[in-house]
Amino acid sequence: METTNKICAGDVRTASRLIRDLEDRLPGARPKLKNLFAHTGKSFIIGITGSPGAGKSTLTDALVHEFRRRGKTVGVLAVDPTSPFTGGAILGDRIRMLRHAEDDAVFVRSLATRGALGGLSQAAGDAIHVMEAMGKDVVIVETVGIGQQELDIINHAHSVVVVLVPGMGDDIQAMKAGIMEIADVFAVNKADRPGAGQLQKELAALLSATAVAEGDWRPPVVTLGNLYEPASFAEKAAELAQKVLEHHDYLIVSGRLAGRMERKAMMEITDALKASILEPVVAKLIATGELKEMTNRVAGRETDPYSEAEAVARRFIKAGETA
Amino acid sequence: METTNKICAGDVRTASRLIRDLEDRLPGARPKLKNLFAHTGKSFIIGITGSPGAGKSTLTDALVHEFRRRGKTVGVLAVDPTSPFTGGAILGDRIRMLRHAEDDAVFVRSLATRGALGGLSQAAGDAIHVMEAMGKDVVIVETVGIGQQELDIINHAHSVVVVLVPGMGDDIQAMKAGIMEIADVFAVNKADRPGAGQLQKELAALLSATAVAEGDWRPPVVTLGNLYEPASFAEKAAELAQKVLEHHDYLIVSGRLAGRMERKAMMEITDALKASILEPVVAKLIATGELKEMTNRVAGRETDPYSEAEAVARRFIKAGETA
Repeated sequence: METTNKICAGDVRTASRLIRDLEDRLPGARPKLKNLFAHTGKSFIIGITGSPGAGKSTLTDALVHEFRRRGKTVGVLAVDPTSPFTGGAILGDRIRMLRHAEDDAVFVRSLATRGALGGLSQAAGDAIHVMEAMGKDVVIVETVGIGQQELDIINHAHSVVVVLVPGMGDDIQAMKAGIMEIADVFAVNKADRPGAGQLQKELAALLSATAVAEGDWRPPVVTLGNLYEPASFAEKAAELAQKVLEHHDYLIVSGRLAGRMERKAMMEITDALKASILEPVVAKLIATGELKEMTNRVAGRETDPYSEAEAVARRFIKAGETA
Repeated sequence: METTNKICAGDVRTASRLIRDLEDRLPGARPKLKNLFAHTGKSFIIGITGSPGAGKSTLTDALVHEFRRRGKTVGVLAVDPTSPFTGGAILGDRIRMLRHAEDDAVFVRSLATRGALGGLSQAAGDAIHVMEAMGKDVVIVETVGIGQQELDIINHAHSVVVVLVPGMGDDIQAMKAGIMEIADVFAVNKADRPGAGQLQKELAALLSATAVAEGDWRPPVVTLGNLYEPASFAEKAAELAQKVLEHHDYLIVSGRLAGRMERKAMMEITDALKASILEPVVAKLIATGELKEMTNRVAGRETDPYSEAEAVARRFIKAGETA
């Protein structure tokens, strides 16, 4: 329980070590997280996503600045699924966050794990729990893109900011259906670039075409201009923070926060089932050399992967439990 | 076996139906795929990935055109993880592919499934197998981005083309480590745009800084300009096709193709294990209402997801088989 007490008291070193141990899947880390879990669920979790180059880190930094100005403590988790091979997020402590380095109320960590079975969503959920237990008022989860894995990560959030930039080309048409489903607030960044008018027009058309029931939330659009005009950029970032907080109020007042908490719990259970059921089976097959033998048989077309997997299932799963 | 025979004879309707049934996870589809599996493994599978708006569909179309000119039959699978909520790839039959619509030797399908446990990689692998069994010489898998899920999809390919465009911003620094690991050929598209020189310079620096052993493959860079100058664009697309085929030759001559086939088999087994072991357990928990109860307990902080998952594992997994 010492770890729990230290983290709940906000101890940065203990929290950092537990996040790293969870990411590395050290055997002792999970029981500690179990003890912490009762102290989670009170933070407001904000997801920020968008294409590479959209300026998410800059926006995250500006949001941190604004939340601090409002007296809130902040945790930031930067999840980088685009650098899966390096064994750690390349940007490390996120250079742009350095201006908050001396501020004890801001806790920043990066994740870029890639397990054989894709444990990034679970690692993100774990790290968020640690930050919640630390008592952070706000936890910001930043990730790249809106692929499937990134959506799993962003589903840990209560409110989602989607960052768009002008000039991303016509594939934005294809992205929009997904974006409309997950975005609670839009940020149009780098709006001093060519194509900004076009993007805002398309977004407005899309938003007005989407039916929103009376009293329901219609995602607002915040337009941010040139980062190198700091005064107006900070003003817009403050507006973005305000819109996100308004969405949080909406979730509470409308009773929708409970639904989002349940969606989050469901996903955490699914991730935990993967870790408890699938991963031990795969670990066993690796340890015995059977996975290698199966691979050779499948690569040589002596058998197919589906029959092999079914045979494994018959061996490991209790008969009669599934139908 | 009728399905197998029809698909091996190239029947488009039967192949289309099986791909759809596999995507929808109809119970009868999997056994059919088992029968087909022995007829797979002979196609050359090319992956194409890049950010949204990078022009992947245009390049895929140009590659199809060039492979057809060389007398090869082609399958194209467009996988769209960015539109997971629509229940089908938005671009459907990929408008730009229409010029091949009358060509029986070209078979084009789109996928955008999103199962609760993320079955997109498996659905992609399934569809590729169907196209292989149809006897396509080349199968092109096109996907968006290089997130974790997209990497799983692209791992089905023997050779990978990464499409870059100028002006994607500084996050390209963060993407590069991942890109360098998966790219066999680089395509710099829209090279008539501002920032093209900078991108090519960065890419050249990165490539020269990467150690390549004597006789190993060094990814070539093909630069494509304005799509609306069709003659020079087609010439560059032909060069891209040539580089991809040279990479295939390299894989064969160097003996590395076997390694890629094994990596692919390993991933297919992992996907199949997920379908055979994890999914039936989750399905059972959903059917009995237990998943809902677990979700309520976790959301209410009465328990934690890890303890819940461990209890499920004890119930479903045979004692003594793991650990």
